[in-house]
Amino acid sequence: MTYSLILLRHGHSEWNAKNLFTGWVDVDLNEQGRAEAVRGGQLLVENDLLPDVLYTSRQKRAINTANIALAEADRGWIDVKRSWRLNERHYGALQGKDKAQTLAEFGEEQFMEWRRSYDVPPPPLADDSEFSQVGDPRYADLGDALPRTECLKDVLERLLPYWESDISVDLRAGKRVLIAAHGNSLRSLVKHLDGISDDDIAGLNIPTGIPLVYELDESLKPVTPGGRYLDPEAAAASIQAVANQGKK
Amino acid sequence: MTYSLILLRHGHSEWNAKNLFTGWVDVDLNEQGRAEAVRGGQLLVENDLLPDVLYTSRQKRAINTANIALAEADRGWIDVKRSWRLNERHYGALQGKDKAQTLAEFGEEQFMEWRRSYDVPPPPLADDSEFSQVGDPRYADLGDALPRTECLKDVLERLLPYWESDISVDLRAGKRVLIAAHGNSLRSLVKHLDGISDDDIAGLNIPTGIPLVYELDESLKPVTPGGRYLDPEAAAASIQAVANQGKK
Repeated sequence: MTYSLILLRHGHSEWNAKNLFTGWVDVDLNEQGRAEAVRGGQLLVENDLLPDVLYTSRQKRAINTANIALAEADRGWIDVKRSWRLNERHYGALQGKDKAQTLAEFGEEQFMEWRRSYDVPPPPLADDSEFSQVGDPRYADLGDALPRTECLKDVLERLLPYWESDISVDLRAGKRVLIAAHGNSLRSLVKHLDGISDDDIAGLNIPTGIPLVYELDESLKPVTPGGRYLDPEAAAASIQAVANQGKK
Repeated sequence: MTYSLILLRHGHSEWNAKNLFTGWVDVDLNEQGRAEAVRGGQLLVENDLLPDVLYTSRQKRAINTANIALAEADRGWIDVKRSWRLNERHYGALQGKDKAQTLAEFGEEQFMEWRRSYDVPPPPLADDSEFSQVGDPRYADLGDALPRTECLKDVLERLLPYWESDISVDLRAGKRVLIAAHGNSLRSLVKHLDGISDDDIAGLNIPTGIPLVYELDESLKPVTPGGRYLDPEAAAASIQAVANQGKK
């Protein structure tokens, strides 16, 4: 008996072209991102991997990716569960800032530490910032637990309880689970599933729009570490492109 | 203490122009239906009536109406629950049939009895019909309870348990509930809420795309019978147009 989990990272958003840190700011997909979602849905159909239940964050770039992909797969009728615990990493005071300007202002070492270290969060976002989520009704139930900044470790720590309480339960019930979420919430989940070290996770990038399928054993450990991308060539090209960026 | 319920009937589908009986056949919205959904979302915003939780049927014309309206209201992040118990009335052997041809074939008396009587269902749909839902994975959990035809009474009888078990619970928890559904599933719910007789319900039509808001008292009875349409003039015009159709 194995279980089937599909991860889908949302594609380009309106802030990609602007080169801004997004985090918990609720930016929508742009046209390219919507096309990525359509392609993601087509890959589910072509591989006969139709999900039984959908999990999303509370952010529209993940929600709309799922809506578009599932409509493409004629699967918009499945059950849906949403949680802030699947949200993108909160980027603290960097939210809304230009990436190039931030790099120039703080220097490459500090910049890379915020971006890639496992346990160093950026400075917290001020509650009166226009990019703060204080007062946002969708997070009203968090109260004082609303993050003001997060490192990847924080993301995993708030995601794991939901993995245990909800996602694992649906998997063990034999449901094929689709999680439509974000670069860092999915990286933290993959770190957990594949047992990746705190150091090595910095080097792991998940391509956008390409479903990543995990077959899990009875203890919910991957049968094949790293899972399987439904378009392996496109995934490899995307991962290589990100690696080359880092070498510049 | 009162509770807030919003009903939204989906708009035009691809089969409206073709003049076919739809029922449980999973036909999508057409362009006009999508525009109606956008307008529905705008009315929620203009009236400051943003829902906290969404209920839909398992049919894409209701699901997509909700997705579009909530995106328009920047409210796509709310919790979602879907059930076949909110589906359109199953139209039996009439599903997929041309309405004018059916009228000519069976005569006006029989035709109107199937359309408007409270407790006379059309003949059952054959399981091998291309318009049957036998074998549809979304209804797999129904087993032998899958309808082959329904009258409005049947619709209310399968809707009420869900109203009691789920929708009422969210209402009593103080959540503003949006139900995106169909002409007959919403008519049966309105019959229940307003205590409309089996005879009088035949004369009640719910306009498409215009949110109908009920304020409910502590026993979940309407404070104002019939509720309140968020665009009363458009609703009145739509109801009058349907009434005039019947006079031809």
